[in-house]
Amino acid sequence: MAEQNVYDNAEFFHNYCALRGKSDNYNDLLEQPALWSLLPPLAGRRVLDLGCGFGDACARYADAGAAAVVGIDLSEKMIARARRDHMRPQVTYLCRSMANLEGVAGPFDVVTSSLAVHYVADFPALARAVAGLLTPGGCFVFSQEHPLTTAPVADIAWQKDAAGQATAYLLSDYGRPGFRTEAWLGQRVEKYHRRFSDLVQALCAADLSVTAMEEPVPDAETLARCPRMEREFHKPSFLLIRAEKRDS
Amino acid sequence: MAEQNVYDNAEFFHNYCALRGKSDNYNDLLEQPALWSLLPPLAGRRVLDLGCGFGDACARYADAGAAAVVGIDLSEKMIARARRDHMRPQVTYLCRSMANLEGVAGPFDVVTSSLAVHYVADFPALARAVAGLLTPGGCFVFSQEHPLTTAPVADIAWQKDAAGQATAYLLSDYGRPGFRTEAWLGQRVEKYHRRFSDLVQALCAADLSVTAMEEPVPDAETLARCPRMEREFHKPSFLLIRAEKRDS
Repeated sequence: MAEQNVYDNAEFFHNYCALRGKSDNYNDLLEQPALWSLLPPLAGRRVLDLGCGFGDACARYADAGAAAVVGIDLSEKMIARARRDHMRPQVTYLCRSMANLEGVAGPFDVVTSSLAVHYVADFPALARAVAGLLTPGGCFVFSQEHPLTTAPVADIAWQKDAAGQATAYLLSDYGRPGFRTEAWLGQRVEKYHRRFSDLVQALCAADLSVTAMEEPVPDAETLARCPRMEREFHKPSFLLIRAEKRDS
Repeated sequence: MAEQNVYDNAEFFHNYCALRGKSDNYNDLLEQPALWSLLPPLAGRRVLDLGCGFGDACARYADAGAAAVVGIDLSEKMIARARRDHMRPQVTYLCRSMANLEGVAGPFDVVTSSLAVHYVADFPALARAVAGLLTPGGCFVFSQEHPLTTAPVADIAWQKDAAGQATAYLLSDYGRPGFRTEAWLGQRVEKYHRRFSDLVQALCAADLSVTAMEEPVPDAETLARCPRMEREFHKPSFLLIRAEKRDS
């Protein structure tokens, strides 16, 4: 299949911008705090961000003292927005696919990726490419849709009680890794389901050691603001992994 | 709560022996091949098996050339059966809890555990104790009930179609690690649910690097013999992890 670039679809891009602008979006409440908790200190470090989107993370990495930050995204609309809104002297934005990192000038101390690796068809190849760009002891910190979220071949569904409260997540096809599509923001978005073991095996095969893993759930305050997030206790939305390049 | 010793309950022990004696049991078809695929060569190695049960694995480790094998199980009935049926000159059986490994004479090159760690309340303490017994570069290879199996607070349930075929697993409470009970073989069995991230964090905190992970599914031949195992593709029964003690 052709490489997905749904983010350059005008309607999808508009809907995505609206979603991320909301104050109660899942990224800001769950995913971003968990991602930052896994990052090493960035002062003086060289950072590569895969699927950088608007560039908000690249700007924060620069503001945290990173010596150099490279942001890569396939979407021209995203890169244009990043250059307009999140430029810093240390940051370079490149409009290219994270599925082919050949020619990207490394090495980097830290490679990050926020909610993009589930769009990549060949995760083992990505892991090898990232390992090739990392300094020894450097780390790859990424978030992705949780494997329980990507599992179903059909659209996501819940069992609900009479009051409409979700009582169980209808899990199917977890043990069948591969291509999936999902209705999201008015489009069919293409992505890939991988089990925990598929991710870990690919990282290990690329000589990256898994050193941390997070499946964030909302705290009491977040839950009071967004009661719908109760569902996260049945089926998390996000998985985050830190993997380190072995020294030697 | 008191330490569980359901395996010394006469009725449970009888039912368990009958289950393991069946030719189509899940352990022999799925769990054991995956466990062996993660083991290093055992020739000349010192091996500790936690929750050794009947001792069948200890005997196989000895037959594969292990220099010394220690099998530990809390159940007196199990240890008596192990000493009767699976004795070898290199094997020692100890009737004691795997939750307290103080005084066990290490070090070991390999620590194994088949379907027992989900009975242990404090997995971080177990991981530290195992790390303390391992030689540098040694490994901990264990299987446990899959986190999707241990997750529900209520008993396991499936959504089925008109023909009675399971179409989805009703997943709940994955994000709430802790104590669970389950109806099994005529008893309420006590166990602990842990997310993937709980397991990985505990191993990493004990200086054990995760180097392999398996979630076995049946092959075509097994599926032809046991069509009910189709469900494994929606919700696996087993998780297996290999973690290695860092050289340092």
